This record gives sequence, structure tokens and C-alpha cells, in this order.
Amino acid sequence: MTVRIGVIGTGMIGRDHTRRIQQVLAGAEVVALSDYHPDAARAVQADLAPKARVYDKGEDLIAADDVDAVLVTSTGATHEPYVLAAIAAGKPVFCEKPLATTADGAKRIVDAEAAFGRRLVQVGFMRRYDAGYVALKAAVDNLIGAPIMVHAAHRNPTVPEQYVTPMAIHDTLIHEIDVLRWLLNDDYVSARVLFPRKAARSHGKLRDPQVVVLETAKGVLIDVEIFVNCHYGYDIQCEVVGEDGIAKLPEPMAIQTRLDAKLQNPILTDWKDRFVDSYDVELNDFIKAAAQGTAAGPSSWDGYVAAINSDACVTAQEREGEAVAITLPARPALYD
Amino acid sequence: MTVRIGVIGTGMIGRDHTRRIQQVLAGAEVVALSDYHPDAARAVQADLAPKARVYDKGEDLIAADDVDAVLVTSTGATHEPYVLAAIAAGKPVFCEKPLATTADGAKRIVDAEAAFGRRLVQVGFMRRYDAGYVALKAAVDNLIGAPIMVHAAHRNPTVPEQYVTPMAIHDTLIHEIDVLRWLLNDDYVSARVLFPRKAARSHGKLRDPQVVVLETAKGVLIDVEIFVNCHYGYDIQCEVVGEDGIAKLPEPMAIQTRLDAKLQNPILTDWKDRFVDSYDVELNDFIKAAAQGTAAGPSSWDGYVAAINSDACVTAQEREGEAVAITLPARPALYD
Amino acid sequence: MTVRIGVIGTGMIGRDHTRRIQQVLAGAEVVALSDYHPDAARAVQADLAPKARVYDKGEDLIAADDVDAVLVTSTGATHEPYVLAAIAAGKPVFCEKPLATTADGAKRIVDAEAAFGRRLVQVGFMRRYDAGYVALKAAVDNLIGAPIMVHAAHRNPTVPEQYVTPMAIHDTLIHEIDVLRWLLNDDYVSARVLFPRKAARSHGKLRDPQVVVLETAKGVLIDVEIFVNCHYGYDIQCEVVGEDGIAKLPEPMAIQTRLDAKLQNPILTDWKDRFVDSYDVELNDFIKAAAQGTAAGPSSWDGYVAAINSDACVTAQEREGEAVAITLPARPALYD
Amino acid sequence: MTVRIGVIGTGMIGRDHTRRIQQVLAGAEVVALSDYHPDAARAVQADLAPKARVYDKGEDLIAADDVDAVLVTSTGATHEPYVLAAIAAGKPVFCEKPLATTADGAKRIVDAEAAFGRRLVQVGFMRRYDAGYVALKAAVDNLIGAPIMVHAAHRNPTVPEQYVTPMAIHDTLIHEIDVLRWLLNDDYVSARVLFPRKAARSHGKLRDPQVVVLETAKGVLIDVEIFVNCHYGYDIQCEVVGEDGIAKLPEPMAIQTRLDAKLQNPILTDWKDRFVDSYDVELNDFIKAAAQGTAAGPSSWDGYVAAINSDACVTAQEREGEAVAITLPARPALYD
Ligand SMILES: NC(=O)c1ccc[n+]([C@@H]2O[C@H](COP(=O)([O-])OP(=O)(O)OC[C@H]3O[C@@H](n4cnc5c(N)ncnc54)[C@H](O)[C@@H]3O)[C@@H](O)[C@H]2O)c1
Ligand SMILES: NC(=O)c1ccc[n+]([C@@H]2O[C@H](COP(=O)([O-])OP(=O)(O)OC[C@H]3O[C@@H](n4cnc5c(N)ncnc54)[C@H](O)[C@@H]3O)[C@@H](O)[C@H]2O)c1
Ligand SMILES: NC(=O)c1ccc[n+]([C@@H]2O[C@H](COP(=O)([O-])OP(=O)(O)OC[C@H]3O[C@@H](n4cnc5c(N)ncnc54)[C@H](O)[C@@H]3O)[C@@H](O)[C@H]2O)c1
Ligand SMILES: NC(=O)c1ccc[n+]([C@@H]2O[C@H](COP(=O)([O-])OP(=O)(O)OC[C@H]3O[C@@H](n4cnc5c(N)ncnc54)[C@H](O)[C@@H]3O)[C@@H](O)[C@H]2O)c1
Repeated sequence: MTVRIGVIGTGMIGRDHTRRIQQVLAGAEVVALSDYHPDAARAVQADLAPKARVYDKGEDLIAADDVDAVLVTSTGATHEPYVLAAIAAGKPVFCEKPLATTADGAKRIVDAEAAFGRRLVQVGFMRRYDAGYVALKAAVDNLIGAPIMVHAAHRNPTVPEQYVTPMAIHDTLIHEIDVLRWLLNDDYVSARVLFPRKAARSHGKLRDPQVVVLETAKGVLIDVEIFVNCHYGYDIQCEVVGEDGIAKLPEPMAIQTRLDAKLQNPILTDWKDRFVDSYDVELNDFIKAAAQGTAAGPSSWDGYVAAINSDACVTAQEREGEAVAITLPARPALYD
Repeated sequence: MTVRIGVIGTGMIGRDHTRRIQQVLAGAEVVALSDYHPDAARAVQADLAPKARVYDKGEDLIAADDVDAVLVTSTGATHEPYVLAAIAAGKPVFCEKPLATTADGAKRIVDAEAAFGRRLVQVGFMRRYDAGYVALKAAVDNLIGAPIMVHAAHRNPTVPEQYVTPMAIHDTLIHEIDVLRWLLNDDYVSARVLFPRKAARSHGKLRDPQVVVLETAKGVLIDVEIFVNCHYGYDIQCEVVGEDGIAKLPEPMAIQTRLDAKLQNPILTDWKDRFVDSYDVELNDFIKAAAQGTAAGPSSWDGYVAAINSDACVTAQEREGEAVAITLPARPALYD
Repeated sequence: MTVRIGVIGTGMIGRDHTRRIQQVLAGAEVVALSDYHPDAARAVQADLAPKARVYDKGEDLIAADDVDAVLVTSTGATHEPYVLAAIAAGKPVFCEKPLATTADGAKRIVDAEAAFGRRLVQVGFMRRYDAGYVALKAAVDNLIGAPIMVHAAHRNPTVPEQYVTPMAIHDTLIHEIDVLRWLLNDDYVSARVLFPRKAARSHGKLRDPQVVVLETAKGVLIDVEIFVNCHYGYDIQCEVVGEDGIAKLPEPMAIQTRLDAKLQNPILTDWKDRFVDSYDVELNDFIKAAAQGTAAGPSSWDGYVAAINSDACVTAQEREGEAVAITLPARPALYD
Repeated sequence: MTVRIGVIGTGMIGRDHTRRIQQVLAGAEVVALSDYHPDAARAVQADLAPKARVYDKGEDLIAADDVDAVLVTSTGATHEPYVLAAIAAGKPVFCEKPLATTADGAKRIVDAEAAFGRRLVQVGFMRRYDAGYVALKAAVDNLIGAPIMVHAAHRNPTVPEQYVTPMAIHDTLIHEIDVLRWLLNDDYVSARVLFPRKAARSHGKLRDPQVVVLETAKGVLIDVEIFVNCHYGYDIQCEVVGEDGIAKLPEPMAIQTRLDAKLQNPILTDWKDRFVDSYDVELNDFIKAAAQGTAAGPSSWDGYVAAINSDACVTAQEREGEAVAITLPARPALYD
């Protein structure tokens, strides 16, 4: 049974997800496209889904009879209404992160889905599908004893002028916020942000780098370095210290060479290349669940909790290193 | 346009390739199954391809109107007739290695395909599709200068009783024989086999380990250690020494842990796990080419040359370390 | 000119330093020995320095005409009086860490030496002489741009019952406290201690592990994990993040093996093995300077500052993660 | 008891060994210097051994009453007469490699020493004292099971014009020839040399690189790549494959950095830096044995066998890859 998918938002990620549904993954087909700029939708139609229908309005795409499931890959701020519409239509919906740009927005989605009574929403936290993180979780669960500390780092070579300090949480740390909850099977109870001096390359309005310290309900202490002007490359590091030993996220596959008096492995410089394989696994998971009329993977609850945690970290950025408590509302049974 | 595929030989590899066509890859569907043991075909039908038709005879499957392309995953010795039948029917055919169990058999396939005038045959040398080897080739082509030497190793923890010395070439070294030709874009002109003392774990009729030394037309000297009783794991190593430096095949992705006073990465022990990702890429290449009525990737010529080289290496096993010359017939223009 | 050395405290370290002066290093000879337990001194005399004279009282050894320089390797709490006596006698003195068990004690030594007007005291912070740290400092000074952050870890497999929380600073972190000042050519302005949950193996009175966060005058943010029940081995990690890149302390030299399905390097389990080579370089530095009637390497000022910083960290252990300010007194010109 | 040493040949190595006896190592003193160019000896006297006496003729230095032991660090071709003279005088003698430039010359030394009846000669194969090789031997002896194969490489970035093909054996492979015998506790029974095409940077009269294949009495198969125009650095590799697993010589200690999109360790480019620490351990071993009037470490028999093996390899260079048998004379009991 081929899942007929409608894609809302055919920008960079929307086009890429359309490509993998049409050319890479089994069991699904893009039958409908929509974008704020219709010509963007038509361009994707021409290149990747000639038989798909282009809708002016996302809502119409969602309502269409021949659309079984929806991909929301539009700009972050526009996700919420489309996800709510898909839930109203009882159709599985994959929503790129962030689920919504505010915790309240995400809460509205959780409430709607809980009321509907069956999971329909998968949020695009692709790291949970990365072979490295999956293997790391197996090691955390089975090899190193109960986790006690995590040392992580999220480094970009550079960021554009409009990247301001809170974006270090909403756009950058958001991936660690979600994946470490999943990795540790735990929730955060406090956040603290510590700032060294500003990096020379960090432009006027951005305090970079920063170290975010999170404490979890089970007592794990996490430190995450965020350095978005690290200059040398795009580099994600994650090391979990357990009772019996330590497990470390592998470096991306690379050819080791001996050249110019150096034993060297290339380090990626473009974030797009770092988790490229995980998007296939992520979308495959969505297609398989959509075929059953439901959704798996990161839930709208995870999207809602990510929003709550991000807000706490942004608050903590202003607290001179003081810890900010994080309390989560009760989790609807749907997400147990 | 969905490529309708018939699978002949639904054993371990046939079942696995059927699974990836049905559940993992886009653009194809298994519509026909056949096996020497019909119940093996019916088992795969039940589990993976309920709408597929089971044929008693492979030839009938190939002839069927609704079969666009053929997978030959039967026992090695039975490949040749099916591939010839597929060529006769003008249908693209993926044939697991070996293309045929003798050089002459492979030659008959090359001649038939050359006569047909369009490539139809892809041979199952999956290492060319492995992300590690692909990245290694890019380094060999672009970073280390012209290749001069290769140091490789193919190690299995253990082999069954019936594994005899020639199988170290036909079943084990065959993968290096093909992948190093492709890696270096070169051909072998001689083979020499050197034997250290027998390993203690090497059973009666097997001289293991052995080091095969190959020289290429461009003057590259290759040494490949084959050790099929290495005990510690399944381990493939490949290092290319060029004019300016060295490039090395990466270790498979693994979690590094600090446990029990050891900094350790797990080493695979089952050959099936080593190139598992490459089979998806390999079959995807076949489907995309079959959709155009042709074939890409390792050709029947590559299968034929692999057979010639293997025979030379088996001869060299008996020559006390003397080099055995390898001369290839003229390559039909179809394979330039 | 052979430097004639007297050793006070012939326990584990005193015996080892005597061995290296007598059998490994050039330019010095042990001519006098003294210990609270005379038989300990006589045992070292018999094994390593038959021509040396055993003194009942350290003070008498210091005063002896044929003693050019003094080694104070007695129990920590007894160092101060011997060092003061050596200064009074104008003789170069190597004092194992800690210089004194209180900041005031160390201050008295600094004042005495400053009054004397020439450096006579070298403190036993051997890590500054470790080939790995020396190479790391060269990389920090020349390769990675100005330092911004440091991520370090000091892990012991286990500690005895009598090891209590403050000792994690005085006995364990003391080495990082000194070596990171030297590595960064900087001083600390605040200390904060964060505790995850207690490790299961951490006995009653010990809160282990802990993460000490230090800020320096130049704005570098340092986090040091101290885990003295880490179980897997004795492991020292140190990574410096600079404007342009990152430099990491090398792992101790070890043989990488492929055994039992693991690519593995042994990790040390005994702290004595970790910096064993550095003690030779450290004592050689002392001998060369003593031959000129002075001292080099870590000064009494460094010993004094280490005591001040340790006290601040111990205070911070009780401050629920709040930062404790560190202010240093003016540094006497002698130590510029 | 301080060993009084006379040094014959105060060039690069002679000066360096004098430095380490005078300034680094305990238990010895340079009391006499001699060189073909007296001013070279006087320069070393002025810089490093003001109280030493300069002799015009090495023979007079050897005969001097106040010389307990001799260092022969003159040009290779001049070693034999000095070593014979030292044996005649019954004085321990450290002779840089080669012991003699011909097998016969080395044999005369073995015969003289055997006649004398006590070991007096240590040959300067410093790799046996390298911490990496010592740890590798422990792994070979205790961890990986009986050795079956060795894969090694000896790479120089470049060599001067006068470096011709046989020097790849006499000057370069000589170190592997000795150290692998010691590592495996074995002897060679055949040598074979295989040549890939010439490297572009290899000048006219030099066939570089080459792979030397050695077989040992215990049946171990050894391949050693010699590439003296490898361009990227000075790189020594050695991997031993045993019944149960593999052990690999560690890379020299180096700081791993993340810079310019590369995870990189520096590779040495000057052979002098590679085994610099081993010379201290080597000379210390000589001093300790000389204090007892004898010699330890690599013996004159090892120097003689190294010469025999080198000659066999040079012969094999001309044999188009054919194996050249190696038979050793009976080993005098003195060297068991
Ligand atoms: N998971 C990841 O690693 C990852 C990476 C990048 C982006 N994203 C997320 O994916 C989403 C899209 O990112 P992108 O990089 O493709 O952005 P983009 O700007 O390239 O594409 C966004 C598309 O949405 C369209 N759009 C905007 N408002 C719309 C509306 N109201 N209705 C329909 N279409 C609308 C725009 O016209 C544009 O074509 C964002 O939420 C972003 O956070 C996730
Ligand atoms: N590329 C690789 O890494 C790789 C790995 C394993 C096997 N192979 C190759 O794949 C092929 C199959 O291997 P396998 O492990 O699946 O073997 P298998 O024994 O598990 O399966 C072979 C199947 O072929 C059937 N068969 C035998 N003769 C037949 C005939 N004349 N007509 C139709 N079916 C016939 C058998 O009944 C069996 O079901 C072999 O050629 C093998 O060399 C390749
Ligand atoms: N740099 C390092 O890594 C390192 C490592 C271990 C110990 N240390 C330091 O070295 C010192 C000695 O440590 P150790 O492990 O040898 O201890 P130890 O207990 O083995 O030896 C201490 C010796 O001092 C003697 N002693 C005690 N009081 C004395 C006094 N008043 N006068 C003379 N002798 C006295 C004791 O009898 C004993 O023989 C301590 O200060 C310790 O902190 C440094
Ligand atoms: N173990 C190693 O890694 C290593 C490295 C380099 C050199 N070596 C060996 O050390 C020896 C010296 O090498 P080097 O690099 O110092 O050479 P060098 O040319 O720098 O020094 C040789 C010295 O010997 C002197 N000399 C020559 N003939 C003499 C004679 N008949 N009597 C006394 N002195 C004489 C020369 O005047 C010169 O001062 C050689 O045998 C060389 O093979 C060993």
C-alpha cells in the first residue's frame, strides 16, 4: 500500500525530503505540493514529482482526499496551524523541528493530538535516527553502567550576522536538548549557562561561545559547549560517563591520510553533511507508521518539552550562571 | 515507472535482496520468484512479496511478460544459464558473484552481451558501493598522487571444514580482486602467492594464512593478506601508498568505550555486517539502470576478468612463490 | 661539579627520587638521608646510597656542610619547617607537593624566599615536565589561537575509605589547578563546583564525582571532571579550545591490539605509571639549577597560589554550584 | 664507581652520545676523545668534556690506562679495527651500527670476542631500546599468540643523490633486519625483493620503493616496504599478526589538533627525532654493563648476522623477486 504524501513548504528541506520519498525510499509517493511561493512548489513538481498536484493553500492540500499523510517543511513559525489541521483531518503529519516556535504553540498540538487519541505527529529530530547516536544509546543502555555525566559539544565554523545569542539555544542546542533526553531516557530539572570571554570572531550582538549545564531528574550532570564561531569545522561531540566506563559518539566516516607531515582525517564544514544518512531512516520511519495511520519517533510531546527546555535555557542565558529550574507538566498517557 | 523484478534463488542473499526491493528501495517491485526448492520461493512470497508469482523454472520467470528485470541469486554454479537467458530476452540482470564459476562461462556471458550490443548485466561486487571504498577511491584519485603500492588484508575469524585453499581465492580474495582493479583503475599482470607456516587453527586441508602479491599494468605492487582463521574478528584492511602520501580504508563505524582498563572499539565478527549498507546502494543502482533498460556498476567483463585473475591466483598457490603471468583478452568496446 | 643532595622523608616518593639521582640522572649524588622513622632512611641507604650519612633530624641534614641541596619528600604536613630551614641555610630545596598544607604555610615560605632574594624552592608539580603536557603547551601557544575553554578530567579507578570530598581538591584536582595555570599562562578568578548524583561505588562520606568550573583572568572557562570511583582506569584528559581550533593531551603510549573482537589500547590503572617519565625530567631540572645555587620550575609562589585556589574550590564544594571569587595577593617581583 | 669512557669519532652521533654521558646519564664520564679530524675532537672537548684528553690515534685512546670503556662512533668503514683493539685490551666497547661494513669484518670481531670468552661488544641497534618496540615485544610475547606474519614499513621523505639501491638495505632496512629478529626471537631463512614501478621522485640510479619479503626459521612471513622518497614524512610502521590477534607499533607521541577542517596529528620528518629517547636507554645499558666489565644488548653476533642478512637482501635485489636462501654459521655459545 503506497502512502500518498503532501508536502507543505518546498524550500531546502522540503525539496530534499521530496527527493528521498520519490527516489530513495519505498512505500510512499508525493502526490501534492504547496508553498507560500507557488513557483517554489512548481519547481519541485517539475524536478521530482511531475504527477503531483500543486495547491495554493496548505490547508487544501491537507484536506485533499488523495493525501494520506502530510510533511510540514515550511518556515518554523508556520508549522503549528498546518499540524493542527492535519490532526483535525486525522492524517499522520511529519513536522520539521521546531514543532512550534513557542511552548504554548506546541502545547496546543499536544492537546489536539491527545484529544484525537492516536499519535499522528512525528517531529523532525533526525539525530535519534543517526547510526552513531543509535549505537551510542545501545552502549549507554548496555555497556557503561547507569549514566552519571555527559560532556557534549556543538560547534559550527561560523554563523551569519542575524544569528543572535538565543538562537544558540533555539536553533543549535535544540538538537542536543532532544537527543540527550532520548539518549539518557531522562528529563531535565535545571539549566545553567556559563560564558567564557567572547570569541574574537563572534560578531557584536552574539555572546559566543557558551557552556550550557543541564541536570536531569535521575541526577545526570550534562555540559554542552556551544561554539558557533569555532572556525575549524562543523563538529558534534558527545561522551557519556557511566558507573563502569565511558562511551563516545563516533567521528563521521572519513578517510585517514598521511600527507604533508600529518596523519589527518577531514572534518566536515557543512552541517548538511553531518546527519545526511539519518534523514532517510527518519522519513522511512514516518512512511512505515503512516501506512498504519499513525506516527512513531519523536512525538509532539518531545517537541513540546524541547520548547519548554529551550525557553529555560534562554532564560538561563541572562542569569549570570545561576541555575533555572525546569518543571514539566504531566505527560498525557498517549506519550507513555 | 516501477521496475518489475523476478528473483531466481531465494536463499539467504535472494531473500535479503527481495526485502530491500520491497521495503527499502524506491522504484521497483518483486513480481516473480523462483527457486530450485519451490517452498523456499513460496516462503519469501509469503513473507515479503504476497502479490508475486512463483515459477517452478527460472527460465519461465525470465520469459514472463510482466518481468522487466531479473535477479540471479541462486547457487554460484547455476548463474550462467540464467544470465544468458536474461540476455537472450533483452532484460537487465543483476547476478550475484561469481558471474560464473569458470572463466569460460563468464566469457560466454560477455560474448552474448557484446553481441546484444547494450549492457544488461550487473555483477554483485558490492564493495564498489561501500561508502568507505567510495571515499577511499576519491582520496586515491585526488589526494595521494599516483598509486605505487597497496597493503590489504581480508581476515575471517574462522571457516567451516569444507573451506579449502582455492576457496581463499574464489570465495574470499575475489572481493579484493575486483575492488582493487576498480580502486586503482588498473589491471593485474601477475600473481604470486606466499605462505607463512600454517596457523594452528587452520584445519587439515587448508593452507592458511597466505599473502597474495599482485602486480598491475601501471606498475602498482599489491600485497593482500588472507587469513581465514584469524580468530579475533572479521576485518577488512586496505591502504594505498601514492607518490605524495597514503590513504586508508576507514574502520566500520563503532562506539569507542573506556571499560575494564581498555580504550576499545568493537570489531565485527560476521561478514554479513561489514558491507550491509552497500547492498542497498548496489541494488538501487541496478533499479535505476533497469528503468532505462540497461545496467551499470560492475559489468560482466569485470566478472570475466575476476574469474581469469582468480584462476591465475589459484595456479600461483601451487608455484612456491613464483609469479604467474596474467594476460587478458581484448576488451569488447561495449565495456570501455 | 656534582650536587650533593640530602633527602628528608624516605617513603615511597623519597626512595624513588633517591634511585633516580643515584642511578638515572647525571650531576648529583645523595650524601644524606633522614626520616621520621630512622630505619626507613637506613633501608634506602643500604639499597641505594651506601656512602650517604643518615641523620636523625632533618634540620641537622639541612645544616650539614657537605649537603648542597635538599629534597623534602616527607609527609605533606611536615614540609613547611624543612623548606624554611633550607631557605635559612641558603640551599636549593625541592619540595614534593603540597608546598604546605595551608595557604598561610605556603605564604611564610614565599615571604622567606622573597626576603632571601633568590629562588631556592622548586615544588614537585611534575606534570609541567610531562612530554604530553609540554607538547600540548606548544600547541596552545602556537597552533590553536588564544584559549577560550578547557575541558579536562581526572579519573581514578577507586579511592580508599579515608578519601573524603575535600581531598578531591587537595590531593586530586591540585595537579590540574597547577598545570592549567601554567598551560594557559593565566590565573583563576572564580571556582564553582557542580555535583551530579553520587556514583554507586562512592562510599558514605564522599560526594563523587564532581565537576569543578574555573574562570580565569583572561576569560577562559575551564571544566574539570573529578571522578575517583570511575572503575575503568586511571585516566587524565585535557582538551583546550582556542580561537582557531582544539588541541588535546595525548593518551599515554600503548600498544593497540586486535583481540577478542576488539580494537583496543590498554588504559593505565595505577597513577604511579601515568607521569613516570616526568619525574626524571623534573629532578634533572632541580639538579641543573641547584648546581647554580638556585631553583627553576614550579616556584613556591606557584605552591602558594595552588593552596589559595584549592581552598577556594573546597569552599565552593559547599556553595550549591555558586561561584566563589578568587583574589590573589600581589606577586613578589622575584616570581615575575 | 664511575665508568671512564673514551669516544672515537666525534661527529654527529659521537657528539650526541658524549652529551648524554656527561649531562643526562648517571655512572659514567668521558675522559678521552679522538677523531680523524683532531679539531672535531677538540670541539667536543671544549663544549662537553673540558677535563677529557684528546688522542690523535684511536688505538692510543683504547690503550690508555684511565679509559675503562670505548665508544666507536666513527664512520662505519672504520669501526672494525677499533672494536678489535678494544677486545684485545679487554675493554667493553659500544660500536655504532654497522658493526663492520662486511660480514667477514663482523665475523673477525665475533671470533675475537668468542676467543676472549666474555661479551665486550654492544652494537648500536637502538630500536631494541625504544619504548614502543619494547611494549610491542611484550604484546607479541604475551598477548597475540605465536607470530605468523609481520607487515612493516620504513619510509623517509627524501634521500640525497648518493643514496643508491643497496643502501636501502645497508643503511635503511638494517634497522628492521635487527629489530624484527629480536622482536620475533627468530632468524631469517630467505629474502626476496619485489619492486613496484619507480616513484616519480626517485632519482636516476635508485630503484625506490621496494618490498622486502623475509621468511624466518619458525615460518613467519615478513613484508617490509622501504620507500625513501615517500615525501609525506619519516614514518616507521610495524604490525605483528599472531594466532589470536594483532599488535601494532604505536605512533610517536603527538598532539592531536582540530584545525582547518582536519583532525590531525603531526608526523615526524627527521629520522633523528623518531628514536631520540631510545639512545639514552641504550647508552645507560652500556654504562651499567661496562661497570661490570662486560656488555649487554645487541651483541657482535647480532651485528654479524645483520651483515649476513643485509648481503642476502642486496643479492635478492638483483633476483627479479626470486627468494635467496640465508644460512647462518653456528652461533658461538657465548651468544646463547
Ligand atoms: N532537522 C534539521 O536538521 C533541519 C535543518 C534545516 C532546517 N530545518 C527546519 O525545516 C524547516 C524549513 O527549513 P528550510 O531550510 O527548508 O527553509 P527554507 O527557507 O529553505 O524553506 C522554507 C519554505 O517554506 C515556505 N513557506 C514559508 N511560509 C510558508 C507557509 N506559511 N506555508 C507554506 N510554505 C511556507 C517558504 O516559501 C520556503 O519555500 C524549518 O522549520 C527549519 O527549522 C530542519
Ligand atoms: N556479495 C556477497 O557478499 C555475497 C555473500 C554471500 C553470497 N553471495 C552469492 O550469492 C549467491 C547465493 O548465495 P546464498 O548465500 O544466498 O546461498 P543460499 O544457499 O542461501 O541460496 C541459494 C539458493 O539458490 C537456490 N538454487 C540452487 N540452484 C538453483 C537453480 N538451479 N535454480 C534456482 N535456484 C537454485 C537454492 O535452492 C537456494 O535457495 C551465491 O552465488 C553466493 O556466492 C554473495
Ligand atoms: N607528585 C606526585 O605525583 C606525588 C605522588 C605521591 C606523593 N606525593 C607527595 O610526596 C610526599 C610523600 O609522599 P609518599 O607517597 O612518599 O608518602 P610516604 O608515606 O610513603 O612517605 C612519607 C615519609 O615521610 C616520613 N616522614 C613523616 N613525617 C616526617 C618528618 N616530620 N620528618 C621526616 N620524615 C617524615 C615518613 O616516615 C615516611 O617515610 C607527600 O607530600 C605527597 O603528597 C607526590
Ligand atoms: N643508530 C643510528 O640510528 C645511527 C644514526 C646515524 C649514524 N649512525 C652511525 O654512527 C656512525 C657515525 O655516524 P655520524 O652520523 O656521526 O657520522 P659523521 O660523519 O657525522 O661522524 C663520523 C666521525 O668519524 C670521524 N672519523 C672518520 N674516520 C675515522 C677514523 N678512522 N678514526 C676516527 N674517527 C674517524 C669523522 O672525522 C667524523 O668526525 C656511523 O657508523 C653511522 O652508521 C647510527
